[in-house]
Amino acid sequence: MTRAAHEEPNVLRLRRLGIDTYQELVVFLEMGSPICRSEGWGAESRVLVTHREKSIVATLNVTTTTLLGPHEASLSEAAWHVLGVSEGDLVRLTHAPAVDSLSQVRAKVYGETLTAAGILSIVRDIVAGRYSDIDLAAFITAFAGTKVSVDETIALTTAMIETGERLYWGRAPIVDKHCVGGLPGNRTSMIVVPIVASCGLTIPKTSSRAITSPAGTADAMETIAPVDLDLAQMRHVVEREGACIVWGGRVRLAPADDVIISVERPLDFDSSTQLVASVLSKKAAAGSTHVVIDIPIGPTAKVRSIAAADALEAMLHAVGTALGLSIRVVRTDGTQPVGRGIGPALEARDVLRVLRGAADAPDDLRARSIALAGAVLEIGSAAQAGKGAVRAREALENGDALRKFEAICAAQGGMKEPVIGRLTHVVRATGPGRVTGIDSRRLARLAKLAGAPRALAAGLELHARLDTIVEADQPLMTLYAEAQGELDYAREYLAANPQVIDLEES
Amino acid sequence: MTRAAHEEPNVLRLRRLGIDTYQELVVFLEMGSPICRSEGWGAESRVLVTHREKSIVATLNVTTTTLLGPHEASLSEAAWHVLGVSEGDLVRLTHAPAVDSLSQVRAKVYGETLTAAGILSIVRDIVAGRYSDIDLAAFITAFAGTKVSVDETIALTTAMIETGERLYWGRAPIVDKHCVGGLPGNRTSMIVVPIVASCGLTIPKTSSRAITSPAGTADAMETIAPVDLDLAQMRHVVEREGACIVWGGRVRLAPADDVIISVERPLDFDSSTQLVASVLSKKAAAGSTHVVIDIPIGPTAKVRSIAAADALEAMLHAVGTALGLSIRVVRTDGTQPVGRGIGPALEARDVLRVLRGAADAPDDLRARSIALAGAVLEIGSAAQAGKGAVRAREALENGDALRKFEAICAAQGGMKEPVIGRLTHVVRATGPGRVTGIDSRRLARLAKLAGAPRALAAGLELHARLDTIVEADQPLMTLYAEAQGELDYAREYLAANPQVIDLEES
Repeated sequence: MTRAAHEEPNVLRLRRLGIDTYQELVVFLEMGSPICRSEGWGAESRVLVTHREKSIVATLNVTTTTLLGPHEASLSEAAWHVLGVSEGDLVRLTHAPAVDSLSQVRAKVYGETLTAAGILSIVRDIVAGRYSDIDLAAFITAFAGTKVSVDETIALTTAMIETGERLYWGRAPIVDKHCVGGLPGNRTSMIVVPIVASCGLTIPKTSSRAITSPAGTADAMETIAPVDLDLAQMRHVVEREGACIVWGGRVRLAPADDVIISVERPLDFDSSTQLVASVLSKKAAAGSTHVVIDIPIGPTAKVRSIAAADALEAMLHAVGTALGLSIRVVRTDGTQPVGRGIGPALEARDVLRVLRGAADAPDDLRARSIALAGAVLEIGSAAQAGKGAVRAREALENGDALRKFEAICAAQGGMKEPVIGRLTHVVRATGPGRVTGIDSRRLARLAKLAGAPRALAAGLELHARLDTIVEADQPLMTLYAEAQGELDYAREYLAANPQVIDLEES
Repeated sequence: MTRAAHEEPNVLRLRRLGIDTYQELVVFLEMGSPICRSEGWGAESRVLVTHREKSIVATLNVTTTTLLGPHEASLSEAAWHVLGVSEGDLVRLTHAPAVDSLSQVRAKVYGETLTAAGILSIVRDIVAGRYSDIDLAAFITAFAGTKVSVDETIALTTAMIETGERLYWGRAPIVDKHCVGGLPGNRTSMIVVPIVASCGLTIPKTSSRAITSPAGTADAMETIAPVDLDLAQMRHVVEREGACIVWGGRVRLAPADDVIISVERPLDFDSSTQLVASVLSKKAAAGSTHVVIDIPIGPTAKVRSIAAADALEAMLHAVGTALGLSIRVVRTDGTQPVGRGIGPALEARDVLRVLRGAADAPDDLRARSIALAGAVLEIGSAAQAGKGAVRAREALENGDALRKFEAICAAQGGMKEPVIGRLTHVVRATGPGRVTGIDSRRLARLAKLAGAPRALAAGLELHARLDTIVEADQPLMTLYAEAQGELDYAREYLAANPQVIDLEES
């Protein structure tokens, strides 16, 4: 070139403004810059940003003051990281090519059944970052209704596996366990994994952070040990201890899932199609062969009736079979939260109490973990049919599970005690009575208002269970927060929605 | 207060950074600022921003450099305008209240039928700016499928009327005319209005800007006369001339429509539910009593079959009746664009040729305008059944319609000649043949790539119609652009999609 690189109209120099727009990739240009004129761009245009061999598609925001010079551009923080650039680097900007797979989304919206190839094209474009947040919302909404066929769900799950990494462990069986969610406090994985591993099975557990709940397994585990391991570190832990409990997002298993979840979260959607695709794609990509799936059922859980559980189980089996996975569903009680804590650190504390055999360990968490671990031992052929729970209890009571958990934490980078929220408020019974209802969904919302899961130490601890009698002024729950605004907001919500815990005068 | 206002943690001073994020309202805060800590906010939080009595809900973006001080905030350009604030003003920031109507959107997604009250709550929240772009995309997708009932469509239309201004003209009938779109160049309104007004009917026409097409009536009219009139100015024009052709967005008729359209546009959705609700809410809110609706039918128009036209007409009548509107549907030929120009200025030029009786006026545009004006004259009782077209032709040929158009333009603020794109490229036939197909959708895309409608002067002009014979090298169309990048992009698209105009060797 005879001109300096940055004098080409399409090549600009990057300046870091440090604007964090969360997930959406944004590129900033000055409104009067030559490239805006020559390309005819305005706010909301979709722009291809290229640095050496790497490209991203970003939404254009224009600046109308002197933040940027005419030959400068900036990126949102997420875009900065994805493109892997530094202050002063040169980038080339061109029109983003049309995203062909969006016509598939449109077809789905208008009632058509998509082919496996059509669905794969959508998921490829999602993983490549070509979908704006608006496009993702349309895709999620289109697939959230009831009119998605089993074949489409199989195709979606397969596409989510194929567009990410796939792990192979060189042995079988590889067992796994997953809860479909909707039940606060149900952190059985952190107990099931060490029980099962101490009995000799291989269980490389990858978990999600919370989608719409106050805590995911990865969030709770993170209050005790590092979870952000890359693939090499994860393999090392599994080679050493036969198990791990890590955040799946780092090892790029079914990466479309995390992109989809980032828009599902503000939308507060949890459709069964996405649920099945999300769960099974992660399990299959992680190399699992035998999976136990816990489905809690209750009026305020995610699955609210036997009929809904039947439909979900059928879809899990249909898709699992197509993927070559052995699935065993265990239906559990979803009428009240499990354990006492709701929120990452508070739930982790319950887990440690169970593993340590503490006197104040929550009985229900302990019993569920034993039952689920027993099911895993059975499908992994480490216990005979009907004998799994007994073997699991033994491993828990003799300390094998605790020692295995400590070893896993050490292998993942070190173990610490979970830190609980420093601001508290005790909620007391207004009068004597029997606890006749506990609204899991409202409790989850309360814990989220208190700051969970973003504030790992926040949430609440229940002091009363269904059917117990309480006296006037007796503590029903304690709220924990790290920020005064969040504690206040939770208290306001409770004042406006007192029926989170129903008391009937006895 | 004993402390200075800006020292309260929730009160910050505004600095204008001039960032244009198009429609979405965004508030910027520095990551370490005290309010982020006390409220527990991070990127994507929804924040209530209050200045004196006015509030908006905005999405938070955090800055991680020294763009803003710890007690400062900034807003996206749209938010700046909506809130009506200036540099240095103080604003109070608090958590945005939960948007209850989103549970209605969720219910719709999962297959429920909504009540009128539920739909009104959604539309109220949309008009109040409480829906993020992601929420809007979910709403649009949920209502775009085929599972929306007539009652829901009536409820949506009614809600869109009730959440905006409603005009009353103190006389009847008030006639109106609307084309459902999908046919480039179909600017009959700009001819129908002066014809009808010159015959004594009152026709206060409010029009939209383009949604997914290369030009809307408001865009084309804007190349000749001001369209951005407020209500008082609009009334003045109608009092003087019995008619107007203005942009409806300024007078706050069915304001939910414009918010919805801003997300429909990038999604490229045009569902019949939204279409009926959009058209009839604007007409009813404008005070119309008798409306002629033009439905072009053709394989590449918006309505592609008789069956689809039947369904749309039935919905228009059902909803129109519920609203007390008299609707008359006129089905027209949608197999090729109308007139020669596609793009605001080029279509306006065609309109002026027809009104002026120029020798090169497009015959098809002229004939359609006469037919539609005739239908309006008949439903408005200014002509007997069957005699409307004759009366309309008379008003056009004797110059009454032209004089009325000039008077309307003068009353709206002045008349000028439309300015055409300065960069051109002539597309020529590759060999002799007969024109056997003209793809309206691809032509529209081509005009948009050339810059329409954002560049009013951009678009294309057709030189060949269906069934005509052309020679090798004969001009088929001319592309017009204002930016070299846009002209190039249009040419690339044409090279990759030569079948925009199909030629069969004869």
